[in-house]
Order: sequence, then structure tokens, then C-alpha cells
Amino acid sequence: MKQRVVSGMRPTGRLHIGHYHGVLENWIAIQEQFDCFFFVADWHSLTTEYADTSGIKDSTRDMVLDWVAFGLDPQKSVIFEQSQVAQHAELNLILGMITPVSWLERNPTYKEMLDNIEQRDLSTFGFLGYPVLMAADIILYRALRVPVGHDQLPHLEITREIARRFNHLYGQVFPEPEALLTETPKLLGLDGRKMSKSYNNSIYLSETAEETAAKIKAMVTDTQRIRRADPGDPERCVAFNLHRIYVPQETLEEIVPACKSAAIGCVDCKKILSDCINERLAPCRARRVELARDASFVDDLLAEGSRRAAAVAATTMQDVRAALKV
Amino acid sequence: MKQRVVSGMRPTGRLHIGHYHGVLENWIAIQEQFDCFFFVADWHSLTTEYADTSGIKDSTRDMVLDWVAFGLDPQKSVIFEQSQVAQHAELNLILGMITPVSWLERNPTYKEMLDNIEQRDLSTFGFLGYPVLMAADIILYRALRVPVGHDQLPHLEITREIARRFNHLYGQVFPEPEALLTETPKLLGLDGRKMSKSYNNSIYLSETAEETAAKIKAMVTDTQRIRRADPGDPERCVAFNLHRIYVPQETLEEIVPACKSAAIGCVDCKKILSDCINERLAPCRARRVELARDASFVDDLLAEGSRRAAAVAATTMQDVRAALKV
Ligand code: SF4
Ligand code: SF4
Repeated sequence: MKQRVVSGMRPTGRLHIGHYHGVLENWIAIQEQFDCFFFVADWHSLTTEYADTSGIKDSTRDMVLDWVAFGLDPQKSVIFEQSQVAQHAELNLILGMITPVSWLERNPTYKEMLDNIEQRDLSTFGFLGYPVLMAADIILYRALRVPVGHDQLPHLEITREIARRFNHLYGQVFPEPEALLTETPKLLGLDGRKMSKSYNNSIYLSETAEETAAKIKAMVTDTQRIRRADPGDPERCVAFNLHRIYVPQETLEEIVPACKSAAIGCVDCKKILSDCINERLAPCRARRVELARDASFVDDLLAEGSRRAAAVAATTMQDVRAALKV
Repeated sequence: MKQRVVSGMRPTGRLHIGHYHGVLENWIAIQEQFDCFFFVADWHSLTTEYADTSGIKDSTRDMVLDWVAFGLDPQKSVIFEQSQVAQHAELNLILGMITPVSWLERNPTYKEMLDNIEQRDLSTFGFLGYPVLMAADIILYRALRVPVGHDQLPHLEITREIARRFNHLYGQVFPEPEALLTETPKLLGLDGRKMSKSYNNSIYLSETAEETAAKIKAMVTDTQRIRRADPGDPERCVAFNLHRIYVPQETLEEIVPACKSAAIGCVDCKKILSDCINERLAPCRARRVELARDASFVDDLLAEGSRRAAAVAATTMQDVRAALKV
């Protein structure tokens, strides 16, 4: 039997290629091998976005269109919305009863975010408790594996501790999920910083080929290459980070010496890049346009997926209640 | 239209007469005048009893039998179980997102219990957050009134603050519930301390007349009245606290001088008391024995009440989701 995997993404709207290579590509890859539950973590959005929730619904729609257009398959995976499965809230409530506040306060992400994010007030009960909700999300489906990067291992450890504590107090109900470690290539944005919506330096999966071409055209290259005749160095070139991902190896092997000898100019070199990106994304982009034509596609898909998820969740909650004797 | 009232009781098992005069009598009294929702607060039990949940189910059954036998009417009031209405957990989750941790930490009961209760570890996330769950319990039904004693006013104030904050952030969904102040006569136990299961000094609603008589017979009276011939003083008499509640005024007016002149002995005087208590409780006790014969009575009643509660809760949650745009 396939091992079950659970993973969620906050509804952040249209995904950029950083999201794709960081998370979605991996989700798509593991669909065959694992029994996958992928969810829109909309309750989680409230931990930080509670003061302005106006974008959550549209962001959900945009994100799920990207998921499916780029390869998540609702036939293979259960794709659902956290807020449509009431058992997440129930299990969250129960797990909160057995989770020491100290486990949450020592969570490194919690401390870091409280210190660093000044424009929003994150000192809420819900923000303190988001690792409890995360634990509920995962163990509600008795996941055995959770795709995480190295930086998220502390979160998974809290989930494991909470599962262990439940089992210790009430008897064995939950497996302790293990990490499915994923290599996440660090993808730089158009300006050389981390690709992020808030930096306005992103290439979106769903943008048009023209938009992508224009962005790449305007992109910084090797800042020491002032004139066309100056030799460049791909190692210093921001654009070349994207070349490495999208341009075929043979072409790269031509570009590097050509750049260093000024045989190729940046305009032409970036044209190669944007062509490669657009070519790679074209079929999925076309599929996305198709899917988006059906206004109820995402709603229907999430409703159906959430029904399937709730059926599994209900079974777990029966065992939870029996163990709790409530 | 009748104002809605919501109130809950933790499943503490068989109720004693202190519970009756402190809470249940008031619930029964307000049933006509208000649209009442009374619930078994079993999720709340977990805030302090998470380490041993073995008694919750039996306690629920015993308590609900007392409720109904002594006068709560499932035709007039909605009698339900918190854990059977998933919307409590959902609204709890949402309200937690907007509740500052500082509101919870400054809750006087929280600080007091953390300091005073040493045999259990109460430093859990759920215990910190019980005022959030309490707020959810109440505003889920858009209650206008909450029966509280003076000591519970700070809790109601947190509920009102949370409702206000929700309305401020997302638009008017919840009324701010107001106190329905109840006079709770301080009822002393058999040993002169507060009546409490843990002191083993209680008269239970559901015990037999013989058990009550034996307890009253063994009860301390005026400790300065050593011999039958010594004059006593009802003001110093622990038993007389119960006389005041259960013995008719005319009889009290005979007992006081008779005690002071040693015309009546404590044995006879307490016989009068236990007869009055037993006479008062007899019809409800008989009713309770009847109800308890039907092994599924409480389960059926709570299932039906919880269905009715969930229907109201679902309507509120539709408005909550519309306001939240999730
Ligand atoms: S030629 Fe290509 S690799 Fe070299 S600096 Fe210009 S864009 Fe970068
Ligand atoms: S006679 Fe009655 S009131 Fe007086 S001390 Fe005895 S029990 Fe109390």
C-alpha cells in the first residue's frame, strides 16, 4: 500500500516559478508513488492575514488553477480546502488541550516572526498555536510522510511530539509522520533577491509569454558588463540563475564561453532564456486558460476533494473520540 | 421574541444541592422567559482533565439525568453536548486568530489556577485558550444574555471583547451578550466548608432519602452545644445553613427559640431538616429513577438537542464565513 503524504499551501494567489520549483514540482512528482492529500491552508492564512481576508478566496482559486494546470491530478491526489473539513478544527481543539504552551513559545519560527514582522500584530492566540493546527492537519489523515525542506524540520518535530503525547495519554491512534526531505533549489527573482510576490520580482506560472519575455528583457545581468563588447561572466549574472534551470545543457555550454568572450550579447542571451521558459510553460499555461474558462471548476474540484478528505477525517475522529472517551 | 440565553456546565457527574441552588434552579426558572440553550461543556473538561478523561461520559449521563429530572425541559430548551456540534471547534479556531494572547494571560482565573493547582499541569495551549472557547460557545448562538454570578463577569467581558473585535474586523455578525446576573446563595457542605465533591461533604440530588438522612444525622451542629441540655445557637450551627433553605419559615421560627432554650435536641432538629430535604427532592428523585431506566434516554436527548443546536450554529457560521470571506 502506498504511504500517505499530506501537505498544504497557504492561498497566496498566482504561483511564481519559485513556488513551482520549490514545492509544486515536488508534489507533482510524488503523486504516483504516494497516496497524496494536498490542501489549501486557508485557516492558516488567518494566523497572519486576519486583518485583511479580502484576497483569500481569489488567491485560492488562482492557486488551485496553477496546481491542476501544472500537473496535480485530482484523480490521483485528494485536493481539498482545509476550512471545508470541520475535523481540522475539532482535532486542533483537542490537540491544543495536550500541547504545552512552552513547546509553542520555543518554536524558532514563532520567535523570529514576532520579532521581525512589525507592520502586523501577530501576538494572537491563533498565531501562537499554528503548529497545533499544523499537527492536526497532518495527523488527521494519519500521514506517514510530510514533504519538508530542512528549515521546516522543527515544525515537523512539534507535530511528532504532539502525536506522541496523544498516543501516550490515550493510546495509539496516530503514526508519527516522518520527513520526506525535498531539495528546494534556491531560485532568485528578477532583481537577484529571493523570488517573492512582495518584492515584485517574480515570473508567474500563469502570466503570458509576452509578459515573461518583457520581464526577462528588463532583467539585470552581469553588472560589470557595461558595453556589448565587454566580456561578461555568467557567475556574476543574475539572469544566468534562470538559465541554469530552463536552458538545456548543450546551449549552456555554448553560452558560457560566448559570454566570456563577448561573442553573445545579453539581449540575445536573455532572448534564449525567455524562449526556453515560455516553451517549457506553454502547455500548462494553455491548459490553465482552458480550466479557468469554467467559472466553477475550482469550487467543484475543492468541494469533491473536501468530501473525500472529510470521509477519511471522520474515520480518524471516530478513533480519536473512542480513545478520548468523549 | 424571547431573548436567547446560552449556558453550559462541565460534566462533573451527579449534581449536589449546591449545584442545584447555584445554577440548575436558575436555569429551570428562566426556561419560560428566555430561548435557552444549555450544554454539556465536555470540550471544556479537557482543559483541566485531559490527563484522565475516563469519567467524562458517565459524568455527562449523570448530570443530564439530574438536569431533566429536576426540571430542565427538552421541549422548552435546547439541551445539547458541545462536542457533538463541530461549529464550536470551528468558531473557536477563528476567534483564536483575532484574540491577543495578552487578553488571555491577564484573565484573573487563569493566573489563579496556574498558581494554585499543583497536582496537574495546566500550562497547556487549551487551558490558556479556554476563554476563547467560551466566547465561541456563547456567540455561536448569538446569545443576548448569559447567566453569570458576579465572580464570572471578567469571563463574560472577554467574550464581549472578542465579539466586538470580530465585528470590528469583519462587520457586524455577533451581538455582545450581556450578563443575566444570578444570585447564588452560598451553600455550605456537611462539614461547614463549601459544598464540593472533592471534600466529600455533599448531598446529591440523586441519592436516596436514607442516604441523605444518614448524612444529616452525622452532621456537625453547634460545636459549643456538648450535651442535650446545653442551650444552642442556630447562628453557630452548620446544619442550620441548610435549615434556612429547606425548612419552612413557620417551623424555623419555632426551632430558633427551641434550640436556644434547649427545648429541642439536635437529633430531632436534624430529623426535621432531613425530612424537609427529602420531601422537597422526592418527586424529582423518583422521576430520575424512571428516566434512568431507559439506558439510551440521555444519548437520544443529547443527539436530538445537538441536532437542533447544530442547525442554529450552521446558520451563524454561514454568516461568519461570508463576513470572513473564507
Ligand atoms: S551574456 Fe548571458 S550569461 Fe552573459 S552576462 Fe549577458 S545574460 Fe548573463
Ligand atoms: S437544635 Fe437545630 S439549630 Fe440548634 S444546634 Fe441543634 S441542629 Fe442546630
